[in-house]
Amino acid sequence: MTTTPHPAWLPDDAFTAIGRRRVVVAGDGALAGTVAEEVAAATARFGGSFSRLEVGDGVADAELVLTLTPPGLTEPGPTEPGADVDESFRFTREGGAVVVQAPCDAGLLHGLFHVVRLGEAAFDGPDADETHAPATGLRMLDHWDNVAVHPVMGQVERGYAGGSLFYDDGAVRADLSRLERYARLLAAVGINRVAINNVNVHAREALLLTDDLPEVARVAAVFRRWGIRVHLAVSFASPILLGGLATSDPLDADVAHWWVRAAARVWTAIPDFGGFVVKADSEGQPGPFAYGRTHADGANMLAAAVAPYDGLVHWRAFVYDHRQDWRDRSTDRARAAYDHFRPLDGAFADNVVVQVKYGPMDFQVREPVSPVLAAMPRTRIALELQVTQEYTGQQRHAVYLGPQWSEILGFRFWAAPGDAAADDSPTVADLATGRGKAAEDPGTGAWRKPAGGFAAVSNTGDDEFWTGHPFAQANLYAYGRLCWDPGLDPSALLDEWAGLTFPGAPDAVRAALHAVLDRSWETYEQYTTPLGVGFMVRPGHHYGPDVDGYEYTPWGTYHFADRDGIGVDRTTRTGTGYAGQYPSPWREVYESVETCPDELLLFFHHVPYTHVLHSGSTVIQHVYDTHFEGVERVERMIEAWSAVSPLVDERLAERVAERLAEQLRSATEWRDQVNTYFLRKSGIPDERGRTIY
Amino acid sequence: MTTTPHPAWLPDDAFTAIGRRRVVVAGDGALAGTVAEEVAAATARFGGSFSRLEVGDGVADAELVLTLTPPGLTEPGPTEPGADVDESFRFTREGGAVVVQAPCDAGLLHGLFHVVRLGEAAFDGPDADETHAPATGLRMLDHWDNVAVHPVMGQVERGYAGGSLFYDDGAVRADLSRLERYARLLAAVGINRVAINNVNVHAREALLLTDDLPEVARVAAVFRRWGIRVHLAVSFASPILLGGLATSDPLDADVAHWWVRAAARVWTAIPDFGGFVVKADSEGQPGPFAYGRTHADGANMLAAAVAPYDGLVHWRAFVYDHRQDWRDRSTDRARAAYDHFRPLDGAFADNVVVQVKYGPMDFQVREPVSPVLAAMPRTRIALELQVTQEYTGQQRHAVYLGPQWSEILGFRFWAAPGDAAADDSPTVADLATGRGKAAEDPGTGAWRKPAGGFAAVSNTGDDEFWTGHPFAQANLYAYGRLCWDPGLDPSALLDEWAGLTFPGAPDAVRAALHAVLDRSWETYEQYTTPLGVGFMVRPGHHYGPDVDGYEYTPWGTYHFADRDGIGVDRTTRTGTGYAGQYPSPWREVYESVETCPDELLLFFHHVPYTHVLHSGSTVIQHVYDTHFEGVERVERMIEAWSAVSPLVDERLAERVAERLAEQLRSATEWRDQVNTYFLRKSGIPDERGRTIY
Repeated sequence: MTTTPHPAWLPDDAFTAIGRRRVVVAGDGALAGTVAEEVAAATARFGGSFSRLEVGDGVADAELVLTLTPPGLTEPGPTEPGADVDESFRFTREGGAVVVQAPCDAGLLHGLFHVVRLGEAAFDGPDADETHAPATGLRMLDHWDNVAVHPVMGQVERGYAGGSLFYDDGAVRADLSRLERYARLLAAVGINRVAINNVNVHAREALLLTDDLPEVARVAAVFRRWGIRVHLAVSFASPILLGGLATSDPLDADVAHWWVRAAARVWTAIPDFGGFVVKADSEGQPGPFAYGRTHADGANMLAAAVAPYDGLVHWRAFVYDHRQDWRDRSTDRARAAYDHFRPLDGAFADNVVVQVKYGPMDFQVREPVSPVLAAMPRTRIALELQVTQEYTGQQRHAVYLGPQWSEILGFRFWAAPGDAAADDSPTVADLATGRGKAAEDPGTGAWRKPAGGFAAVSNTGDDEFWTGHPFAQANLYAYGRLCWDPGLDPSALLDEWAGLTFPGAPDAVRAALHAVLDRSWETYEQYTTPLGVGFMVRPGHHYGPDVDGYEYTPWGTYHFADRDGIGVDRTTRTGTGYAGQYPSPWREVYESVETCPDELLLFFHHVPYTHVLHSGSTVIQHVYDTHFEGVERVERMIEAWSAVSPLVDERLAERVAERLAEQLRSATEWRDQVNTYFLRKSGIPDERGRTIY
Repeated sequence: MTTTPHPAWLPDDAFTAIGRRRVVVAGDGALAGTVAEEVAAATARFGGSFSRLEVGDGVADAELVLTLTPPGLTEPGPTEPGADVDESFRFTREGGAVVVQAPCDAGLLHGLFHVVRLGEAAFDGPDADETHAPATGLRMLDHWDNVAVHPVMGQVERGYAGGSLFYDDGAVRADLSRLERYARLLAAVGINRVAINNVNVHAREALLLTDDLPEVARVAAVFRRWGIRVHLAVSFASPILLGGLATSDPLDADVAHWWVRAAARVWTAIPDFGGFVVKADSEGQPGPFAYGRTHADGANMLAAAVAPYDGLVHWRAFVYDHRQDWRDRSTDRARAAYDHFRPLDGAFADNVVVQVKYGPMDFQVREPVSPVLAAMPRTRIALELQVTQEYTGQQRHAVYLGPQWSEILGFRFWAAPGDAAADDSPTVADLATGRGKAAEDPGTGAWRKPAGGFAAVSNTGDDEFWTGHPFAQANLYAYGRLCWDPGLDPSALLDEWAGLTFPGAPDAVRAALHAVLDRSWETYEQYTTPLGVGFMVRPGHHYGPDVDGYEYTPWGTYHFADRDGIGVDRTTRTGTGYAGQYPSPWREVYESVETCPDELLLFFHHVPYTHVLHSGSTVIQHVYDTHFEGVERVERMIEAWSAVSPLVDERLAERVAERLAEQLRSATEWRDQVNTYFLRKSGIPDERGRTIY
């Protein structure tokens, strides 16, 4: 690394408030040691004082005490299979002196970063007594990193931030010092599990499970100091690839035994190893279907192997036919996860988490929330998000995804849109965390707990700014924070991130960041695919427009535009029946073209270009208007940023300026291709006579 | 090589007629030695006899004499810059005894293969006395082989027949025995020059010119035994890449001097080296434009360096803006080569050959013949064809290109279509060979001679069958033979190839080959892009349909289909003016939608789908009809071949069957995507109510 990586949200100055004070750290445990090191460094830097004491010692004139809960006051909470240790902490402020108490050292670490985030505000204000605990113990980040550079996908699949932080030159990096910085950044936003390799497990990467275990253990040791456990993505065909068996049939005794021994080796090497992530029977990856077995058969076999160690199996529900015939309009990729998994509800072992992408397709800028999330009350369900911007600008476009995730997390399957009285109806966040008033399952009356928490695909790499676009740091930041507390306001998170990342910057900088990012998700949606129809990207790399790029392919991602109209009929009455996968009231809401929300109209219905939206605009005019407006918004983003860029670090300003220029170029290309495509096809001119080619 | 390569058109049995006879070879020279070795082997195998004599010795009872012309009878013809030695031969038959006389040993070799092709017929029939000479001394095959495997393009760019015959593992092959077989095959069809590396010259390949010269010399030694000279594609930036200079400005003295020394080194190592091939200022390759120089400046600087050795510079005219804005309808890629090169007519040195692709775009299944071929009377012009099937099925589809090339070679720029009285108007073949009655140039009254001959991109690799699809051998065969004599009938060439390749096969096999191949070019055109509009392929790899694949890209390859019509207006009156690049009468023929030939209508005109063709069909109905018929024809090809496949070599039969199955799958995909695209866009149903999706 020739350039020092950008400090992201943990510049030295983020520790000013702590570093100036008299601080005491009390308690044992590795993470208490980490906390002590952080405090020691901060106080040394900013002139405060630091003492390391035993729990219960006197802390007379301390201004900040970070301590394990004195014995007898509380006990660590119970752990359940795959749930982490108690990470909660209590924050009290009395006369400006702050005490953070935690039953376990993990809570102490989270408490420290809580104080960091608050800065001076931690010590100001009225007396307080708050208890903080994460919404779920499963706050996971999935790296799609390859050990070897893949000839097509590169080192990081769908990675837009350089090479891997983990691997270099076909092996785990010798120097893990940058990984240590990374673990610290993740810990500071609350991530506590990391899968360190691509779910598409190629031959070289399969070896992480066996030959490379000593190397994985080195990585785990780095993360351990920050309260983060390591997981591996594994190939379902490992018994064949690595074990020399003739089969990977999950009901074959030799196969099961192979996995039992594999798990034993892993946990011997890494006692706090997290578990396995599996993409099976999906996009060419091997799985139980080859043997006529179900996904429950496959997952449970693995689950049995890891159960003795409280290990988890994250089993992805992203299963569909990627060799679909575009001529066949009855097959609907959107239906696939539900059709595959709903019948298996109740069949999965306790330590299996079924990991469900937020939408039924594939991380599009706009999709309905996946009905699988509501369909498996007797299954531990994790919500999977995508922090890496595969379909949302690939970190060349400034797109802050916090609002999208917040909208998904707050979606209520059993409440009508706009029903204010439905506040006690469970949200997606409730379903993923097992908190709140989860819906009654018609069958059992209860939802399985613990739930599956959150997982997301990382957007980081060995880029100077970690994420390619410096503003894409905000997405990783927001993801971690929303995992901890899904109710957080994404705009407030942007403030948090900006306050930490640009400490001491003038208000104008923060205002500009809001101007650029607050509505950037909506802006991206405006200039790309309209009304929920999705895709229209260049096949393969998925960057930039190609309206028909996937229209006649086996991937099942169609828009069916003809000279009269566009959209996919997914109703139960005349379409693929996908709308029927939702519980009421949404099945009815989506079924009807009258009630379907505008932003998802083309996902559920094929309508004429002249169809009038609830907004009052026709579909075709909406396409034109949003595409023109989207580009205008990017122009205003650039204006807003240009005015303040001299006020921030020069290298960062340069990078942002370069990315914004590309965003404008790309947005313009999207606008012109989409508008031209639909003008040529519909023949209906723009009401306002703007230039379409 | 684990499998013995297929013998192609030189199986042992092809030498039966010669091998059974009493044969005399007389004369010196390396190629006479090659001839003697061939004859010795054949007579040993089939029971004839072989004597090696001096020229002029008595040849009493010989049945076949291959001899250099006795001294005093004729002299070798004069050589001109870059023209080869005299390759002619005289064939006489008297009472069943055959004498082949040639002034040079090269002619002896060609005469031998002439007798091989004739087989028993050489010795049958009435007395004869014929003189054979090639239409041009420049019959060149260009290999787009990379030394190192390119991460995107593979080892052979646009190669569909495995790896390179020249290179393996990043270097020239240690074992050149297969290359020897290849050289023999090329010699047998008349190829006499081979460029051995990709015109896109990457960093590794640039070194062929310097560090690798000893290796190139090894390759040249192999080809030399078969009368074939080796050329290299070179990077115009070589003085920078290899010489450490700061510039490759052709008017810079140091640059010119660098090339002078480079040429001296090359010809020292390889005294009969052919020359350089240059792709400059094209698709990212460096060139003189960077220094504000013309292509004549660039080519002439190189020409001066190689002139002392009678070396040639093949300078490609494939120069266009590949960063075009699709919104800009005034820029027309089709115009580019003419616009760039026509003004330079007369400016190129004697030993520069401007190499012109047959059409103005890029080796499409149907293009008008490039007007550049008619526009530069004071320039040596080579016609460039593409034997490798980049846009014509990539050797997965059986497409015999002989008829396409024959049509191009026979095109008369200055004669009206169907004007039978225009037989003495020069053909494209005349322009490329300098033979026949070349047109009077309005300015000078004469065309430059010698002309530039032929060049083509090879379709071979280290595949067992040399060409992937065994039937693609016929294309290489036909190309070589048409170079020798552009007037040959492509159907007769198919017979020649079949007779040699399947010696002794029943007539049914030959009939099936005709059934499969005779109209296969037309069939491919039917199920792919209609009426000359071109492209509609998947970007990048160029295989399979994607109607809008290049429509909104920088490559300048558009069809402008909207709901009302399709095609590119290239008229002078309302379009890009491309039609005006042709001399009369074709400029008027193409300009008018009334007279423009159906097969090129959409290349020259944008017309409504309801436009009625000369055939009586509407454009849209033509699209439907040809696409349905194309697939039906492929089905019939499969039937025809299946009936005879048990009669041929099993491995070959298997390979062909596998390819035909893929051709049917792919043709069906083309049919359905193209038909569906246009039905959706036009809304006009098929008159015959067939299934469109």
